[in-house]
Amino acid sequence: MGSLGLVTPQAMHFAEPLLLQSGAQLGDYTLMYETYGTLNADKSNAVLICHALNASHHVAGHYATPKSAGWWDNMVGPGKPVDTDRFFVIGINNLGSCFGSTGPMHVNPATGKPYGAAFPLVTVEDWVAAQARLADRLGIEQFAAVMGGSLGGMQALSWAIMYPDRLRHCIVIASTPKLSAQNIAFNDVARQAILTDPDYHGGDFYEHDVVPKNGLKVARMIGHITYLSNDDMAEKFGRKLRNAAETNDYNFDFGIDFEIESYLRYQGDKFSEYFDANTYLLITKALDYFDPAREHGGDLTKALAGTKAQFLVASFSTDWRFSPERSREIVEALISNRRRVSYAEIDAPHGHDAFLLEDARYMNVVRAYYNRIALEVA
Amino acid sequence: MGSLGLVTPQAMHFAEPLLLQSGAQLGDYTLMYETYGTLNADKSNAVLICHALNASHHVAGHYATPKSAGWWDNMVGPGKPVDTDRFFVIGINNLGSCFGSTGPMHVNPATGKPYGAAFPLVTVEDWVAAQARLADRLGIEQFAAVMGGSLGGMQALSWAIMYPDRLRHCIVIASTPKLSAQNIAFNDVARQAILTDPDYHGGDFYEHDVVPKNGLKVARMIGHITYLSNDDMAEKFGRKLRNAAETNDYNFDFGIDFEIESYLRYQGDKFSEYFDANTYLLITKALDYFDPAREHGGDLTKALAGTKAQFLVASFSTDWRFSPERSREIVEALISNRRRVSYAEIDAPHGHDAFLLEDARYMNVVRAYYNRIALEVA
Repeated sequence: MGSLGLVTPQAMHFAEPLLLQSGAQLGDYTLMYETYGTLNADKSNAVLICHALNASHHVAGHYATPKSAGWWDNMVGPGKPVDTDRFFVIGINNLGSCFGSTGPMHVNPATGKPYGAAFPLVTVEDWVAAQARLADRLGIEQFAAVMGGSLGGMQALSWAIMYPDRLRHCIVIASTPKLSAQNIAFNDVARQAILTDPDYHGGDFYEHDVVPKNGLKVARMIGHITYLSNDDMAEKFGRKLRNAAETNDYNFDFGIDFEIESYLRYQGDKFSEYFDANTYLLITKALDYFDPAREHGGDLTKALAGTKAQFLVASFSTDWRFSPERSREIVEALISNRRRVSYAEIDAPHGHDAFLLEDARYMNVVRAYYNRIALEVA
Repeated sequence: MGSLGLVTPQAMHFAEPLLLQSGAQLGDYTLMYETYGTLNADKSNAVLICHALNASHHVAGHYATPKSAGWWDNMVGPGKPVDTDRFFVIGINNLGSCFGSTGPMHVNPATGKPYGAAFPLVTVEDWVAAQARLADRLGIEQFAAVMGGSLGGMQALSWAIMYPDRLRHCIVIASTPKLSAQNIAFNDVARQAILTDPDYHGGDFYEHDVVPKNGLKVARMIGHITYLSNDDMAEKFGRKLRNAAETNDYNFDFGIDFEIESYLRYQGDKFSEYFDANTYLLITKALDYFDPAREHGGDLTKALAGTKAQFLVASFSTDWRFSPERSREIVEALISNRRRVSYAEIDAPHGHDAFLLEDARYMNVVRAYYNRIALEVA
């Protein structure tokens, strides 16, 4: 397996307004994207990769700065499961993100100031509609596959529902057909932490030259707990004390006693330094709102009735955020529709985060599936 | 089953200093407590009830104000599982609490100002030592039983370890021999929310005439999610919209869309109005620190080797905070020590909170156990 090496993000501007599910409208907007590999002559080898909460169009390869590898660099590249020697892979940054596509940090043409909290709430379906326009511009009528993990999997599923003729394969990993009350609850606590941080300034913190760092940190810590499995946390951290090498005793203060505290606070700090609070708020709302069965009286089978793609659905045994049970709901609804679907429930210790991590069985499942797709392309 | 009717809290002052596990010392202190029923002539029918995170000495009966029933009023009273016609029951408020026993809101004799964050961190073992002094004063050499749920169960377990001759029965419900990394993680996020609230003022918010309401609210929301089961939340709230009767559509803003958001924010608001932030911090630390096996190289069997009580251990199937597995660790360590132990794993939908709720099977288990204890007393 080789490396993609240096990759370069591109920007595409859209002057046509985008009507959003909320009824609001984005007058014009820019989408950031990256491509890897070469589009073949009949444009049949394109793969779209959709990102999850905190990721971006930078799926694979790296930038000139160190430590800038793409978030799915283990999955996408020459000779990798999604083989860029055979496929033309597109990574795209969603609207409302803080990584380049039009979002809350950009200037609202109506006011001349950053959108802030005035950036319209966008849904998974809105993202997919915007992605379809980018595909139009690139001349891609039909993707060989649309693929994503977690929130990215919701986008892949929406592609299959909204544009059944525009993808041959739909790959949905560690995802769910809708958030549970518990999932929503965790998102709402995270949002409350941000919204009540005095440095949030009702979303207009940019002009105050601050960021709601504490709120974002707490939000990320909560999120992070739900990404890891209980067992994995127990094994990696357990009750290990940070000062184990020294006193190996409790500090009896509100500083850091346990390694797990140190780890989570570090993750929270790091996140609050690069992620935008308004983006966090709106992406968690997009998660909460996703529920394609909703307009079919809650019937997922009906929601998936118009799909034409073939499906690969994968879940991880220790994922308690979007458990295997949630993936099986998708699989069962597809089977009820007599869709062709492969399902892999991967026994992996790493909880929800497993979809981003190296795991031989997981990688082999995806590789085998893409080998099959490649036969159709060649 | 009758009601205890009006009950009256009592205060007991202790002038003898209490040396704490941290090495700090409380010069003098007051403990609030309540008693129900009558202590018999040989003082053999006393039962001590230990409280969990947000509760108090007000276990049963009610005060003059409405809605002031004790937190375990379904469990303790005339004809109830812990029958006050037969037992003399004591509810006690722990040190550091905000319900009357000496805590962060009280005046620190060293400074003449409220302790605030300067109140020394107290451990489960410290609480038990203070409870033992109250028992001394009441002339109770040996309890018929010491009983508690969750954090209260940890105190009961500590009684069995610290004062093996002072209790005949130890009743440990919905508890654990130590917090997991995930448990600690949730506690630490909650603490971070409080500590970073600008209204916390390093713990001295009393003199600023504010409370860190937002931090406490977020802390409580996080806690509350872990008290409920995933299934129970799904059944009670699911994805129900708060405006279901009106538009039954998303609001596309950061207000309240889902019933679960409304419920949790309400719980958070309510809690932040009556609970003290410093108390929340120190009680979560007591939870984190509890680990009786620690000084025995992590061997719980060794930690319980000196116990003499008989045990009732109970857990609830959907409790994912302190799962049945954690209770079974206690049971197995007791069995290894050839202690007499009854174990009930109750199939109940309500998660960790089940230990506070009415459930016929649960109540019957406790009732049957106390019937057995009553035979020894009579």
